[in-house]
Amino acid sequence: MAHALTLNAGSSSLKFGYFHLDTDAGEPDARIVGLVERIGQGQRAHMRAKGPDGAVLIDKEFGRNHVSDHGTALERVVAFLRDRRPDATLSAVGHRVVHGGPDFDAPVELTDKVIKRLAEFEPLAPLHQPHNLSGVRAALELFPDAVQVACFDTAFHRNHPWVNDTFAIPRRFYDEGVRRYGFHGLSYEYISSKLAEIAPHLHMGRTIVAHLGNGASMCGLMGGRSVASSMGFTALDGLPMGTRCGQLDPGVLLYMLQTEGMGADEIQNVLYRESGLLGLSELSNDMRTLEAAAKENERAREAISYFVFRIRRELGALAAALGGVSTLVFCGGIGENSVHIREKVCEGMGWLGMEIDEGRNLRSEQIISTDLSRVRVLVIPTNEELVIARAARDMLAQKEETAA
Amino acid sequence: MAHALTLNAGSSSLKFGYFHLDTDAGEPDARIVGLVERIGQGQRAHMRAKGPDGAVLIDKEFGRNHVSDHGTALERVVAFLRDRRPDATLSAVGHRVVHGGPDFDAPVELTDKVIKRLAEFEPLAPLHQPHNLSGVRAALELFPDAVQVACFDTAFHRNHPWVNDTFAIPRRFYDEGVRRYGFHGLSYEYISSKLAEIAPHLHMGRTIVAHLGNGASMCGLMGGRSVASSMGFTALDGLPMGTRCGQLDPGVLLYMLQTEGMGADEIQNVLYRESGLLGLSELSNDMRTLEAAAKENERAREAISYFVFRIRRELGALAAALGGVSTLVFCGGIGENSVHIREKVCEGMGWLGMEIDEGRNLRSEQIISTDLSRVRVLVIPTNEELVIARAARDMLAQKEETAA
Repeated sequence: MAHALTLNAGSSSLKFGYFHLDTDAGEPDARIVGLVERIGQGQRAHMRAKGPDGAVLIDKEFGRNHVSDHGTALERVVAFLRDRRPDATLSAVGHRVVHGGPDFDAPVELTDKVIKRLAEFEPLAPLHQPHNLSGVRAALELFPDAVQVACFDTAFHRNHPWVNDTFAIPRRFYDEGVRRYGFHGLSYEYISSKLAEIAPHLHMGRTIVAHLGNGASMCGLMGGRSVASSMGFTALDGLPMGTRCGQLDPGVLLYMLQTEGMGADEIQNVLYRESGLLGLSELSNDMRTLEAAAKENERAREAISYFVFRIRRELGALAAALGGVSTLVFCGGIGENSVHIREKVCEGMGWLGMEIDEGRNLRSEQIISTDLSRVRVLVIPTNEELVIARAARDMLAQKEETAA
Repeated sequence: MAHALTLNAGSSSLKFGYFHLDTDAGEPDARIVGLVERIGQGQRAHMRAKGPDGAVLIDKEFGRNHVSDHGTALERVVAFLRDRRPDATLSAVGHRVVHGGPDFDAPVELTDKVIKRLAEFEPLAPLHQPHNLSGVRAALELFPDAVQVACFDTAFHRNHPWVNDTFAIPRRFYDEGVRRYGFHGLSYEYISSKLAEIAPHLHMGRTIVAHLGNGASMCGLMGGRSVASSMGFTALDGLPMGTRCGQLDPGVLLYMLQTEGMGADEIQNVLYRESGLLGLSELSNDMRTLEAAAKENERAREAISYFVFRIRRELGALAAALGGVSTLVFCGGIGENSVHIREKVCEGMGWLGMEIDEGRNLRSEQIISTDLSRVRVLVIPTNEELVIARAARDMLAQKEETAA
């Protein structure tokens, strides 16, 4: 029995999973899944983890500044796992890495050469990539004997048709790597695999997946493969997000530079941290907070309306990119939990042959469309950790085969 | 009989029209329509004009640097008109002005106060507005006794729902005037009026107009009024154009600033002048040139494919914004003339109930959809000059009424 650790670093969080692997291609078995959140200077980080039966294994708040970066968070996770599983040896560590650049369209073993190549993509994702790679380096030191695998958020989208990979700017930028990468690839890969399992005939068709969380994007799939995504070169584009702007006229940045006299770093901060739901509501980046406040607070209502409007617009655009749509899947924190957002996104979509059932939606059933709806609308909880664990399993199996 | 002059300044051109007005609301009668093109330093400007029967009245090339700015171009136009119509007195001059800011949703008389207000919008359209207003000032000096009317490219879109007027950035920007203005409003207004005339029942419904020229945008209309547009704050957003980029991930601008070390003016130049069809084809900004070269030239083919793909994407997005679509109208130089672009935009749109007839499309008939197509597809030559002349007529009538 081999064991694997999965690591999924967000901007201020670190998700982890401890899996039993059956390298004969059986599904990885999640024994512990957990999360450290509020990592960073001046914050009280919080660690939670559960066992396979849902039993809480840890729920602990740390002192202020006790977990000030992702390296420290990883040490805390490892200490917790060694305490719970003193005899376990990790055979593999799987990492979510945001950017695989133009090259990587599949998971890859993290050799020195690969790490060096991934570091070259730092200019493509300056806020995330350096950070992901420092996690990789820390894990290599902690587990020198484990196979380390990188799973890319971009890989699932890497074979888009050219028209959906480029922008209409001089070609030298495309050659330098300015492309429509798309992100949330691990989530879309999970949804695609789940759809193949529960409804193979839908999986074969035209599917739009709305991954709606604090980060949000949408993906158009044909036969389970990504054809188009709402996200482009960076994680800023497409849908509005908790604090990120989504689609923006490039002329607005020129205005910020030329008329407002703002600097590049200042603009970056506004677009990544002060925009989206937070910027419009002036209240919160969290959809739960906005929905709770909406009755009294007009700006919260407006922020929600804008979010819904842009999802609907993207739904039409992706349907056009696919030549129609047979299935819509909601996932991510908001997609899996917000009855209201799902209802509003699907409202008046009869022209597309889409109709949802109020009761099914209210109960967040797996299928929320009516029996007569031509487009099936599903809610599928996503599972990025499982996709990373599968990649770790496959890499181990491949190495065993090579060794044999 | 009153006479009006219409002026429509592009970046390097000046269109003009000489109209007979019947102030009792009869349609303005275009007696002369013409154009000065290739205005600017180091160029040989060219003036052409035709009478109502299509007879060529002038077709003249000027010496290099003889028409180096729009002021000189206007003088040439006036000299030509005085030569043709020595006895005519202009009662009104109608100007196309690109930006009416957040205030103006209708044509307005150009008083000192209004001109001052319009100058305040210069930061919103630094490449066009100063230029438009210098044309206005020159015309005021040349025709001090004429009523001067401004017609705004933004006015037709000014009553969009809020979700389609804002971006998801901090609200202070919206309050400062950073909004989704949309442009090509005079063209959309003409198409809307023409649709009301030829097919009132279609005019009542959900219409998408594709204004495809060297500048290109799309507009969604409900009952003849603009509800959504592909263009946003500036004329950069939305569809790719001759030399403009269209939709672009804001992260690409941050990359240009932070990684490439480009300055704001340099970026502006790339996005306005070196992008779009020219940037992708590395051949030309002119669709006719690209279509002629497409057979041998892969990059020309790719540029055309990208243009078509983005139009199709926007068609789906606008259908979603409207809750479906009953009519699609093509206009503008490319929309009116390119059989190939219209064919490719409509290809495989059966999921939307849209099908075009090959023969009708080939002959550029007014209706190019099949008899069984649920969505009617039309080709309507646009006429911005007529919309300006109508505004001049209405302003004269209003002033006569006030005086009476």
